[in-house]
Amino acid sequence: MAIHAKELQNAEKENTQEMIEWLSSFGKTKNEGVTRLLYSKAWCQAQRALKHKMEQIGLNTYFDCVGNLFGKLQGLAVESPCILTGSHVDTVVEGGKYDGAYGIIASLIAVSRLFETYGYPKKTIEVVSFCEEEGSRFPLTFWGSRNTNGFYTLDHIRNITDAEGISFLEAMKQAGFDPAYYQTPIRKDIERFIEVHIEQGMVLEKNQKTIGLVTHIVGQRRYLVRIKGESNHAGTTPMSYRKDAVVTASQLISFLTNKAKEIDSHLVATVGKIEVSPNVPNVVAGEVKFSLDIRHHKAEILDQYCQAIFSECRQLSEALNTEIEFSQWMDVTPVAMDEQLLKVIRNIAVQKNLPFQDIVSGAGHDAQVFASKIPANLIFVPSKDGISHNPKEFTSLEELEMGIELLTEVLYQLAY
Amino acid sequence: MAIHAKELQNAEKENTQEMIEWLSSFGKTKNEGVTRLLYSKAWCQAQRALKHKMEQIGLNTYFDCVGNLFGKLQGLAVESPCILTGSHVDTVVEGGKYDGAYGIIASLIAVSRLFETYGYPKKTIEVVSFCEEEGSRFPLTFWGSRNTNGFYTLDHIRNITDAEGISFLEAMKQAGFDPAYYQTPIRKDIERFIEVHIEQGMVLEKNQKTIGLVTHIVGQRRYLVRIKGESNHAGTTPMSYRKDAVVTASQLISFLTNKAKEIDSHLVATVGKIEVSPNVPNVVAGEVKFSLDIRHHKAEILDQYCQAIFSECRQLSEALNTEIEFSQWMDVTPVAMDEQLLKVIRNIAVQKNLPFQDIVSGAGHDAQVFASKIPANLIFVPSKDGISHNPKEFTSLEELEMGIELLTEVLYQLAY
Repeated sequence: MAIHAKELQNAEKENTQEMIEWLSSFGKTKNEGVTRLLYSKAWCQAQRALKHKMEQIGLNTYFDCVGNLFGKLQGLAVESPCILTGSHVDTVVEGGKYDGAYGIIASLIAVSRLFETYGYPKKTIEVVSFCEEEGSRFPLTFWGSRNTNGFYTLDHIRNITDAEGISFLEAMKQAGFDPAYYQTPIRKDIERFIEVHIEQGMVLEKNQKTIGLVTHIVGQRRYLVRIKGESNHAGTTPMSYRKDAVVTASQLISFLTNKAKEIDSHLVATVGKIEVSPNVPNVVAGEVKFSLDIRHHKAEILDQYCQAIFSECRQLSEALNTEIEFSQWMDVTPVAMDEQLLKVIRNIAVQKNLPFQDIVSGAGHDAQVFASKIPANLIFVPSKDGISHNPKEFTSLEELEMGIELLTEVLYQLAY
Repeated sequence: MAIHAKELQNAEKENTQEMIEWLSSFGKTKNEGVTRLLYSKAWCQAQRALKHKMEQIGLNTYFDCVGNLFGKLQGLAVESPCILTGSHVDTVVEGGKYDGAYGIIASLIAVSRLFETYGYPKKTIEVVSFCEEEGSRFPLTFWGSRNTNGFYTLDHIRNITDAEGISFLEAMKQAGFDPAYYQTPIRKDIERFIEVHIEQGMVLEKNQKTIGLVTHIVGQRRYLVRIKGESNHAGTTPMSYRKDAVVTASQLISFLTNKAKEIDSHLVATVGKIEVSPNVPNVVAGEVKFSLDIRHHKAEILDQYCQAIFSECRQLSEALNTEIEFSQWMDVTPVAMDEQLLKVIRNIAVQKNLPFQDIVSGAGHDAQVFASKIPANLIFVPSKDGISHNPKEFTSLEELEMGIELLTEVLYQLAY
């Protein structure tokens, strides 16, 4: 394998930067952010432009019936299985240039360099631009990769509308993917999936590493916690008579976050949203609803934490004369990345002298959808200040290039 | 003094109930509540109707230049000082039939009964229907009693508008009180003020008392507390890296409420309003703003509490890697009711076998505006379930009558 970072011509580096800027031009906002929602005009332009770019590189392109775009480099072996690599093209509202987009561009550049240098591979490589992962237009995530894996059908989106009342079905049709022609776009010929992505956290930066080798993607359990107290006059109700939902919620949040720290350093528990009723300065709150987001890469730890908190929260709440209700609205199982390939990737990183570390992904990614069916791997590059889903999202060109260099070598070892 | 509850004719009891219903008809809402905002149509109708009612009873009536309505029963003594009694005619949006209204009606009935039975008093008695106390149309409270005491001028309302953009000055003019004719309506001839009011709390009910003899009206200090942390991804930010404003706020709220309980059983501290930013389940909160409402009837206790919390809150906040800012937007001094008259009222309550107790008012009342200048007293009757500022506000006819009976005897002893 002859490709090393130091040998990359400046022209190639410039190309990476140009590609990032070029893809971010579809859906660019006034704040230098990117808004590219599923099936929107900007999304259609981006997918069509990517298709054209793939063809320029020499890939055979096609859309599946939900709008996932594939660019195929046919393998020479008879009945060649497919190595799939890529990420998602959609963004959140006012997102950045790197989330998702970098993964598609990294795969495109890696495959382009391999093809230029070595010609056709033994095994087929396909670059994918998944139509949707974020769940930022419709209340549903992984529409792209879950279709590819057969987890979704039209039934999952039949009654869903966006914030403007446009139905999912109508949006699909307007983008050129008429639901009337829907047939499950499940792929059974894929051997493994490899994704590169920005970390969206600050672990790599704090540890001064450029490459994060993801060992697991966390499981997520999300709850709505509802505390019912009694709304009373803040002046005329002595403290001892109160059933103050804010006081109960505060004690619970302190307890929940301390307990998470106690159990495991990888466990995170977040209360990000709080709604108080009636939410008036001089009225004791009658009700508080808050979100609880719990993540860890081992189901046992998630179980242990949930068992530890539920009965304790009930007791705390009762002791404060308030009632509590938990309702779960998300349950995502943790998954492990393919350990066999991880070993190979670690070796490559050592040989290439890339500063790397193992890391757990605390965010969800398309790789996790594949990981429940086939070997899948995920490689991170740093996010400056941990910022993501924001126009300030940034990864340096050097870091982007190191990710591409690593992916290129991994694909070479897998397919050539 | 010959008036006892048992001697009241049924006709008189019916009259009290009728008067409550009658006054509540001005501004009655679909939900059987009352909305009678300052200078509104319902307010104008109520004040005009009250004026007519006062005249029927035999009082000489007049409005001052801000719309406070007075009904005068002239005293026989030369240069007679005035005993003022009454309450406010305005309500909150969707308020009840008793808050404010009961105080006006109680005074009217008491004076009417005294006049019928004993004729003209030695000292002048005036019944007042204050134009405004609640602050529910314009962001300003006690417009009525603060004008009577010379604390307000037009300068205080010159730039104020209501939620619909109507200026205070325009609303005054439309109601017939043209600001062009404003001259401070300060009264220097008032010897003392006596108000009866519903408790708006549940202390009397819990203690099975009908009469609350108010010893103090609390001071109020209100703050906006702002916690600044750092907004981060809930999945990719380990607990140890976080600057979670929700976690800091929760610990502070627990601390603040526990500290209030520790310092004094009459001290109340309330966090009624919380605003989280960005308030999204999967994002660590970057900022939390919450209200803090602190009340006690002794300034020393308010000082002690505030001193105890500020430095501790700063330390707690720093220890959690967040910043804190306190900004005070209300500072009302606590006042004592006239102790001399309180002794007299207690004796009357004992003689009349009325179930009474001393009580501190945790809510603000017109009596507190007078108390900083002249002797003032406040008498409570119970609020069912402590409910007020709500169509469900309720006090039984028996309880209303006991309040009137007590006020009648107090006025008799003061003026006849």
